[in-house]
Amino acid sequence: MSTPDWLDAVHFDANGLVAAIAQESGTGDILMVAWMNREALAQTVLTGQATYWSRSRQRLWRKGEESGHTQAVGEIRLDCDGDAILLTVTQVGGVACHTGRHSCFYSRLDGGQWVVTDPVLRDPALVYAPKGEGHGSHS
Amino acid sequence: MSTPDWLDAVHFDANGLVAAIAQESGTGDILMVAWMNREALAQTVLTGQATYWSRSRQRLWRKGEESGHTQAVGEIRLDCDGDAILLTVTQVGGVACHTGRHSCFYSRLDGGQWVVTDPVLRDPALVYAPKGEGHGSHS
Repeated sequence: MSTPDWLDAVHFDANGLVAAIAQESGTGDILMVAWMNREALAQTVLTGQATYWSRSRQRLWRKGEESGHTQAVGEIRLDCDGDAILLTVTQVGGVACHTGRHSCFYSRLDGGQWVVTDPVLRDPALVYAPKGEGHGSHS
Repeated sequence: MSTPDWLDAVHFDANGLVAAIAQESGTGDILMVAWMNREALAQTVLTGQATYWSRSRQRLWRKGEESGHTQAVGEIRLDCDGDAILLTVTQVGGVACHTGRHSCFYSRLDGGQWVVTDPVLRDPALVYAPKGEGHGSHS
């Protein structure tokens, strides 16, 4: 099977990755930056759900697969040199960050220090509880 | 001289770089993604003007140094794993892209093709004209 032309226009780096920014639809908030390989980008387009490449786990990572905080993708944009992707997303639960915050960019430089400015909206211990715990379910 | 603590909290990659997103103040538009090394980030904080590391030219690049389309920096944010920077900027001239467009993300995936959605606001041939030309000046 041939690769779609649109995928060939993306310039993946030496590691086969491209930076992907998730911007919240409506608010315009930047929720997170992650990485995509070709398959992650193709899956994102195919499913309409943001799928990244996890560098730490070295595998495809459908955002929210554990936390339930999935991202439904609206627009997909490419920048002028083809090495960055911008997704417009609807963030399920309003929480994109694994710390339980709305956005991963919750620290602001202020007087020579990084100051946490955003509240934890959901306790990550509950979000990432082992299956069968924290959900009142035996399944 | 010791490195400021805030700079040590930033996780530069194997190439000494971190991704930096420029988001326009007020509109929330994502204007561009570029890269910073330690010096670029330190210069950005020191001067209040966005300064990146040009991978193609392998040198510091004060945004707008040729085009005049500088970026005055408001907030600087760091993400949860310390490997991406978010700048809130005021874009001089309203043009961030070297193509003369507002944003570098002017192509949208639509029906399996990248479709250019944003107009050219300034002719790049005029923006990047050799000194003494295009400005009606003999200096």
